[in-house]
Amino acid sequence: MSMSLAIKRAAAAATRAISSANSSSILTRDLHASSGKKKIVGVFYKAHEYAKMNPNFLGCVENALGIRDWLESQGHEYIVTDNKEGPDCELEKHIPDAHVIITTPFHPGYINAERIKKAKNLQLLLTAGIGSDHVDLQAAADAGLTVAEVTGSNVVSVAEDELMRILILVRNFLPGYHQVITGDWNVAGIAYRAYDLEGKTVGTVGCGRIGRLLLQRLKPFGCNLLYHDRIKMDSELESQIGASYEENLDIMLPKCDVVVINTPLTEKTRGLFDKERIAKLKKGVLIVNNARGAIMDTQAVADGCASGHIGGYSGDVWYPQPAPKDHPWRYMPNQAMTPHISGTTIDAQLRYAAGVKEMLENYFKGEDFPAQHYIVKEGELASQYR
Amino acid sequence: MSMSLAIKRAAAAATRAISSANSSSILTRDLHASSGKKKIVGVFYKAHEYAKMNPNFLGCVENALGIRDWLESQGHEYIVTDNKEGPDCELEKHIPDAHVIITTPFHPGYINAERIKKAKNLQLLLTAGIGSDHVDLQAAADAGLTVAEVTGSNVVSVAEDELMRILILVRNFLPGYHQVITGDWNVAGIAYRAYDLEGKTVGTVGCGRIGRLLLQRLKPFGCNLLYHDRIKMDSELESQIGASYEENLDIMLPKCDVVVINTPLTEKTRGLFDKERIAKLKKGVLIVNNARGAIMDTQAVADGCASGHIGGYSGDVWYPQPAPKDHPWRYMPNQAMTPHISGTTIDAQLRYAAGVKEMLENYFKGEDFPAQHYIVKEGELASQYR
Repeated sequence: MSMSLAIKRAAAAATRAISSANSSSILTRDLHASSGKKKIVGVFYKAHEYAKMNPNFLGCVENALGIRDWLESQGHEYIVTDNKEGPDCELEKHIPDAHVIITTPFHPGYINAERIKKAKNLQLLLTAGIGSDHVDLQAAADAGLTVAEVTGSNVVSVAEDELMRILILVRNFLPGYHQVITGDWNVAGIAYRAYDLEGKTVGTVGCGRIGRLLLQRLKPFGCNLLYHDRIKMDSELESQIGASYEENLDIMLPKCDVVVINTPLTEKTRGLFDKERIAKLKKGVLIVNNARGAIMDTQAVADGCASGHIGGYSGDVWYPQPAPKDHPWRYMPNQAMTPHISGTTIDAQLRYAAGVKEMLENYFKGEDFPAQHYIVKEGELASQYR
Repeated sequence: MSMSLAIKRAAAAATRAISSANSSSILTRDLHASSGKKKIVGVFYKAHEYAKMNPNFLGCVENALGIRDWLESQGHEYIVTDNKEGPDCELEKHIPDAHVIITTPFHPGYINAERIKKAKNLQLLLTAGIGSDHVDLQAAADAGLTVAEVTGSNVVSVAEDELMRILILVRNFLPGYHQVITGDWNVAGIAYRAYDLEGKTVGTVGCGRIGRLLLQRLKPFGCNLLYHDRIKMDSELESQIGASYEENLDIMLPKCDVVVINTPLTEKTRGLFDKERIAKLKKGVLIVNNARGAIMDTQAVADGCASGHIGGYSGDVWYPQPAPKDHPWRYMPNQAMTPHISGTTIDAQLRYAAGVKEMLENYFKGEDFPAQHYIVKEGELASQYR
């Protein structure tokens, strides 16, 4: 980052520090050490035998975003691991002297306040993808760290996946697939609850980039499209997309045949869909959630599926991740779940690997990042996390 | 049908009969017996316990298109069965004196030349849905029968389902789902071959109503869209849909990342995708076929999936139907098959039940059907079956 930015950041952090009881650590950091050799730690999922099956499969431990040679040729150290949990894990070992930690939402290295406190050299937290809730953002802000993600890198990937999941639920795909692989044939057992998407009411909770891309893709399906967000789209965009604004979430939700979650996980959205809110949804409602698992009350979703109040639930996000073997969403009826995958298509990996490399280049040169990438900057959280 | 139509049809049939060696039976039929009490036979799938689970689930034996009371109140006889195969089946018993046979593509009563010969009273074959290849259409034409379907009744249903299947294959959904239900979590095992649909080339083989609805729904995905058909769309529609015409099928196919089959099963399309044609497709091609199973060489598809030349195959059509337990498509890798379901959503059932009722009303009154519903009329096959 630039010197002037570094100074501003230091000033912002100092200002916060003055008003903070727990501020001693941050003032000791060298906040503008952007030159020199850096230690960069990457936390990704292991691909094992799959790593060599596709040359563009960059987002795994083995291929490490394709930036190892580039980093090492400049004298930087690059540690990569998938071992990220508990006090003896590989990530924990490198926390004290890492300058940069890169991770993904698909196999997140959780950077909590305790780890931030230990990370005396840490300056930069990069998310290869979108969604930085694996970081304690307020602690990062208080510590004067920069948090950034590759905004836009996988919005198309996620929106496409959401539309797939809507169709899988509305059309009752999975019972048919199960019949095929078990040697059965019973059209009635599928058809009695298979519908067209046409004419149904679909509402998105949150309508940022992904939500808008989803609505654009839904437009030719002839649905009734609703969106709830902090901000109403301008009228031209709204009529182009063909969706109606719902200021009040709880007025929108009971109208929806399909609810799609497109909001980041923040303190306001954590547990947003609890037992009470789910009870107010239309009976048989279909829910798609590729946003974050913790937006839902886990057991309330499982109970809703068991009772039939929720007609189907599909998504790729869980809490925690990886989902444990006994996570109730694995076993509830009418689920169409996968591991966290929608934003890590090969196309998305190429984009977020390029975005991370670009930000590292900026960082080494002391330049700013593209403005939309910042999640925490100069002690302030991006607006969606406030 | 009207008297003048009946006369024309009789004349056409007679003309054919004169030039046909095997014509004696048809001249004995009462071709315009549209008044009086009729025997109507319906062949549908059984719904068992599912029949009562949804009041709009009309397309099954138990609910019989919702027309029983209406038919019986007018004195007609209405026999409904799912038992349709072999010389001793229920359908066979009613062939000799049925006036009308109604069936669906989802559980088709196959009406071959032998059955047509036995069906001395038969006048009308109605398909509740789209696709009348379960009828020997030339034999029906030679016998002076009318064959009609509810054109348009489930085109939206099938197009939506095709787009779902494209996404399921492109994004490699099912391996992720399998991980969930088996207690596993291995993002890499999904991601190494998961892609965005954006930027890929999708070609439809055949571009009638369903193909066009699919292309319209694909438009916002930012794909390269191609279509092959006998007829080029007019330029305005083509540019509105955003697809390019490919006159030569074998020039289009090697360009496609995804091939979707949208052609009826005719003598020209039976076995169209044989070993040789499949070999010319792009390695890793994804194929979606909701048209008819017999358009593919069954074993060539299974072999292509086994070798990886076909990267994924999804559809809901098989030959025969129901698919036997040992059908190779049940066991091939990277399949996303279901029983024949896409055109029998609840929404589609409401539409095709209404369409059948309307045609029966026309028939009882001696009126013409809506022109687009005819598949065989006055001894002639509709253009797509010629």
